[in-house]
Parts: sequence; C-alpha cells; structure tokens
Amino acid sequence: MSYTDLSTPIRTIMTPGPVEADPRVLRAMSTPVIGQFDPEFLKVMNETMALLRYSFQTDNHRTFPVDGTSRAGIEAVLCSIIEPGDKVLIPIFGRFGYLLTEIASRCGAEIHTLEKDWGEVFYPEEVKAEMKKVNPKVVAMVHGETSTGKMQPLKEIGQFCREQDALFVVDAVATLGGVEFKTDEWCIDAAIAGTQKCLAVPSGMAPLTYNDRVEELILERKDIERGLADDSANDRRIQSNYFDLSQIQDYWTTDRLNHHTEATSMLYALREGLRIIQEEGIEQRCERHQFHGEALMEGLKAMGLELFGNQENKMPVVTVIKVPEGIDEAQVRQTLINEFSIEIAGAFGPLKGNVWRIGSMGFSCRKSNILQVLSALEATLLYHGADINCGAALQAALAFYAEHK
Amino acid sequence: MSYTDLSTPIRTIMTPGPVEADPRVLRAMSTPVIGQFDPEFLKVMNETMALLRYSFQTDNHRTFPVDGTSRAGIEAVLCSIIEPGDKVLIPIFGRFGYLLTEIASRCGAEIHTLEKDWGEVFYPEEVKAEMKKVNPKVVAMVHGETSTGKMQPLKEIGQFCREQDALFVVDAVATLGGVEFKTDEWCIDAAIAGTQKCLAVPSGMAPLTYNDRVEELILERKDIERGLADDSANDRRIQSNYFDLSQIQDYWTTDRLNHHTEATSMLYALREGLRIIQEEGIEQRCERHQFHGEALMEGLKAMGLELFGNQENKMPVVTVIKVPEGIDEAQVRQTLINEFSIEIAGAFGPLKGNVWRIGSMGFSCRKSNILQVLSALEATLLYHGADINCGAALQAALAFYAEHK
Repeated sequence: MSYTDLSTPIRTIMTPGPVEADPRVLRAMSTPVIGQFDPEFLKVMNETMALLRYSFQTDNHRTFPVDGTSRAGIEAVLCSIIEPGDKVLIPIFGRFGYLLTEIASRCGAEIHTLEKDWGEVFYPEEVKAEMKKVNPKVVAMVHGETSTGKMQPLKEIGQFCREQDALFVVDAVATLGGVEFKTDEWCIDAAIAGTQKCLAVPSGMAPLTYNDRVEELILERKDIERGLADDSANDRRIQSNYFDLSQIQDYWTTDRLNHHTEATSMLYALREGLRIIQEEGIEQRCERHQFHGEALMEGLKAMGLELFGNQENKMPVVTVIKVPEGIDEAQVRQTLINEFSIEIAGAFGPLKGNVWRIGSMGFSCRKSNILQVLSALEATLLYHGADINCGAALQAALAFYAEHK
Repeated sequence: MSYTDLSTPIRTIMTPGPVEADPRVLRAMSTPVIGQFDPEFLKVMNETMALLRYSFQTDNHRTFPVDGTSRAGIEAVLCSIIEPGDKVLIPIFGRFGYLLTEIASRCGAEIHTLEKDWGEVFYPEEVKAEMKKVNPKVVAMVHGETSTGKMQPLKEIGQFCREQDALFVVDAVATLGGVEFKTDEWCIDAAIAGTQKCLAVPSGMAPLTYNDRVEELILERKDIERGLADDSANDRRIQSNYFDLSQIQDYWTTDRLNHHTEATSMLYALREGLRIIQEEGIEQRCERHQFHGEALMEGLKAMGLELFGNQENKMPVVTVIKVPEGIDEAQVRQTLINEFSIEIAGAFGPLKGNVWRIGSMGFSCRKSNILQVLSALEATLLYHGADINCGAALQAALAFYAEHK
C-alpha cells in the first residue's frame, strides 16, 4: 500500500481544543533541528522559560514544559508531590475534576472529593469548610472546566491553602493565555497549562510552574531516594522516572543533566506561541478573548439558543448552549464539519447529546471565525428544521462589534 | 525584554541523536492542525499505525506512538506490564540498560541484572542461564546501546523467552529504521522506538508495538481495576494514567475513547518520516546505514584513530573512537561545532572524556555528511596538535565509496 502526501482539510476550529495553531507557530516548527546539548539550544530553553513566567504571571524559577500532552504535566506535578497515603482534596465541577481524582488516586493518595452539579462552581467557603475537616496536604482543582464551560474563582481558596499550609495545584490547561491567571498573586503552588488551547500551539507539551514550597518537597523525596540502600517499605521515591520533576528540573538548568531528549520542534512552537502572547500583551489578550466570547454569546442568544448553566461563572473562551428540542446534535455537527469545514464540540457524560460547546480560543478567537460559526450554525439549524430566529445572529454580533470597537 | 524571531544555526548533526530531521518531515509539521475527533484525523492515525507496523516488521494490531520522548514509551510499556514484586531480568551493557532498571524499579519490580563491561554485549547463553535461575516474568534489554556503540543480537534470547513464557521487552530507540529489527520473527513481545534517531523525525514521540501476550496481561489488570470496589491491598492498577496502555490503545481505535489530545503536528511528522522509510524500503534503508557507517569507519581508521570496544557487535549507526593521547576531547568538539557547525558527541559514565561517539543516523546518514565530519575532524585534530595521518581519511572514504558504489 502506498500513502499520499499529507493532505488534511483546512478547518475553522471552534471547539475547546485542539484549536487552530497560529501560522507563525506552524512556521517555527519547520525550523531545522539542533542538538539538545548545542549551546544555541540552551538559549531557546532559557527564553522559553522566561516567556512562560510572563504568561503564568509568576516569578517561579521552576517554570518549564514537560514533553507530553496536558495530562502529562498534571501527572508530573501530582506524582512528584503525592506520596502513598497523602490526603488530597479535589473539588469537582466537571469532567476534568475526575481526571485529577483518577491521577491522584494512582499515586496512592487518600482522595477526598466535593462535587457540584455540572454548570456550577464552588463558593470558596465550601472548599474552605471541607479543608478544615480533611486537613489535606494537597488541594487540586480545575480552573476552567471545558466540559461545562465554567470557571472557578481561585484567589480566596489559594490564600486559605497558604494559611492552612496545604499545597494548591491548579489545572489551568484551558485558561492560560486566554483568561486572567495570576499564579503568584493567587497563591497557587503549582499550575499546569495546555498548548493546544489559548496558547494556539499544537498539542504535545505541558507547560508548568511551581514554587519553592513544591520544590522543597520534591528535593526531600530525592534526598531520601539517594540515601536508600535498598527498596524498603518506606520507599518515598517518585513512582515515575519520566515525570520525576526533581530530575526534569535539573535538565532545565545550565547543568543540563540529561533526562529525556527535549522535543525540539515542539519547543520551537511553544516559544513562538509565547512570543506572540508577549507581543500582544497578556492583559490585552485576555480582553480579546473576553470580547469575542461576548460577541459569540450575543449572536447565539439572538438566534434564540439557550446558554447552559450558571452564567455568573462562565468561561469567556467556551460557550455551552443547549441543543434545541427535536434536533439531533451529532447531525448538526456533521453538517457543520462536512459542508462548512467548521468544527464545534459535543459533550461528555451527563451533558452528552444535550449541549454543544463552542470554543473561542487563541488564534481561533477572531471576528471572522465568530461570524462564520454563527452564520453556519444558523443555516444548519434551519436546514435541520429548528425553530430559531432567522437572521438575528449576525445582526446582534455585528451590532456588538460596532458598539464595542 | 523582547525576543527575536527564532534563528538557530544550521548544523551538520553527527551524534547518536537527536539528528537532522528530514526536510520533508519539517514541512509536514507546518500543516494546519485538525481536531482529534475530525474524521480526517482518524485516517492519519490509521495510516501511521500501518506504516509503523511496516517499520517494526510486525503484524501486531497494537502499534502506535505514545506522546512523549522515547523514555515515555519505555515507561508506558514497563509500567503497564510490571506489577509490584514481579521479577524482571535486565542484562545491562551500557547506560540505557541502567535506565530500564531505574524505570522498572519504580514500578515496584524485583530487579535482577547481569552486567557486561562497556564495549561488549552478551552471549545468548549467559542470558538464558540467568533466566533459568531467576525465572523472570519480564526480560528487558536494549538493542543498540548508543553509550558504547554496541548492538545485542536478540533472536535467540527472544526464542528462549517464548519457551520460558517470559515477556521480552526491547528498547529499539536507537536502531529502528536504521538497523534490521524484526519484532515478530525475533519473538519480541514489546518494542519501543525513538523518532529523533534513525527515523529522522524530531524528538517528542515514542512509537511502540506489543502483541497479544502483552495485551492480555494489560486487559487483565484493567478488568481487575474495574471490579475494585475500593483501594485494597491488592491494587493491581497500572500506576500511571498517562502511560496506561489499556486506555491509550482504546484511543487508537475507531472508538477513539478520549484519553489525551493527540500531538497533531508530531503525528504529521512521524507519518511523513515513516512514509519516507516505506518509499526507500526498510531493507534498502538498513543497507544505506551499514554502507555509510563503513565508509565512516574506513576514514577514521585511515586517519589513525582507534575504534572502541569489540567490533564484532558494532552498531552500524554509531561509531565510537578513542580520543588520541594528549587531546582534550571537549575542546575538539567545541572547535567542530563553533567553527564547522558540525556536532559529534562525547560520552557518559566510564567513557566520559575518553571517546567520541559519531552517529550516522536517518537523514544525517549521507555521503556529504560522512565526508564533512571526516575532513573537519582531521583538520581539527591537526589544529589541536594530534599525531594523525594527514590526508588519509578522505582518500580511504572516497576509495570505499568508489569500490562499493
């Protein structure tokens, strides 16, 4: 069998990720490879770390990507700090909260969860009350839940974690680079981002950051490991080699202690994505995401569609709408992708079949994409016999753009 | 601080990896991203799996890449099959044998090792004798040790593993795509490759393959996991979520059960790298590597340099030479990279400072690169005052090329 030259279609990607990569990022990836011990490569690593600190809004020295997709970064943080029997509190308000539970559980954690109905987030008091009861070593939470389109305010919880001497770990995969995220100001001890969402970089790297409190713990485990004569019952080693942050952080220094072979082209991509963020300015970038997210909402509401869940804590970069009665949600998505080459997302778990999730992230978050998805969705819904307000979406969105220019 | 457009130097990379990526691979990476649930993406995944089966010379259904660097693939295989207390035999003949030990040990294995002096490999009888004594569940070995430039014959060991009902896991990171590797014929139960070596693709993916014997074990662990009501003492769960092959293999089917978000651009790169292998033909490709490797050796010997270790089991794609007396090995490499923009490698552990390792892998394995590294090395050694045969290397290499054309 012979295989043709790669010829994938050009899509307008309006999902909660992976979204369109910035063309500058795609070009950066075709830069020739240099060796991992090449002095010029150290420069690329250092610049990427500095740019990441800016995006994470942190002074943390330990700020670098792990080579793997977002959940690789989450697992690297959790397995480097959780030891068997450690109490970990995970407040869950959507699918990715369960993922934290699943990963922490495999690290041997004693898991404590709080759960919210999908579409809601937590009041800080609820988390604080549970923390007083459980006294966890770690509190792990999702910032933006793409499964529900909701966003958890973190600052107050972070401050309380600091008071209680718990480590606060945040999954910022869907928010970093698109929504305000202040690692240091919000007292976040470790955070993990995703490249394939608001950073507009392809999937395959997990940028993360952690502070001295986390590093201290990791180094303590490393010291014990070094002193172990054999496998004792009190083996406190980090259970993964690939995700052992005590080793990876040594790779990301001038010592360059060999761990893995850095994913060169992905690093080129990440550096370029972060450079674009720095040029745009992180605050301006968050404003852009907020702005186009509102335009999208105006259009959807004008069409007569109903937004899902509590709007008070809506993620600006993911808009979740209910499927109109009598409409087959999968069929609508199929028409959109097959006829318009536009991708929106269905849903998971309890929401499956009942809502669509429309992303407006990174490079995909721009006026032409917002208007395209609104018009194509309107046309498709009409085509499938839905009872919506014909012509209202574009009018509302354009009015919004004219007013807020 | 502002950051310039990425402008890394163009290098001639003659190390044991990462080596030069094929320009076609670099171009493939700048293809626009499509979503992971896009029907067209499924096609890219299926084609990549089929192409991987060809390179691995296997009929294994389960043949796909893990999103991470080579050691991510090794950890995925080992942690998916090793349970606490399992006996694992690891015959070590260089640095990467220790890595297998380190990873298996963190999975809770009872480790048994055999060790050879660096520069040698094992007689199959030695491994078989130890297997009879230990009766291991798993035998894990490196195929090509880039640390010493030596290659372990595997077929007889594989056959004995099958007889003894042990699982045979092989690290083929440095050999796949450049040296003969026959997964099925050699009775290898699981093998892991690297992209950044003979595949001529950037680092960041770990292609792997495993057979039904491995899958059966993985599914057994998954079933037990599903039946567990709580965390019992007999927790047989795979300790990693990211590396849980029972979950990842479901992602690589038409069901496409969501696990991670596939590293789109890296997959494009891998597909193109494998397509080039298919076009060249795997046997022809191995012959090319053998051929240029010999030309390199002829040149180095003519120069008066001494090859390291037992030549009987030399890897065709890595040539290890002793540093001439009185020469500072690091200084020579610095001159090569700073003045000629040519990279060769130093060494690890007991060989550090004493040898250079010259790779001839993938796209880097071509006549012009062989002649460039020979001439530049000769000039550099003379410059640093080494006593070598002036002018002999090019003559010998060109004579070899003329004779074997």
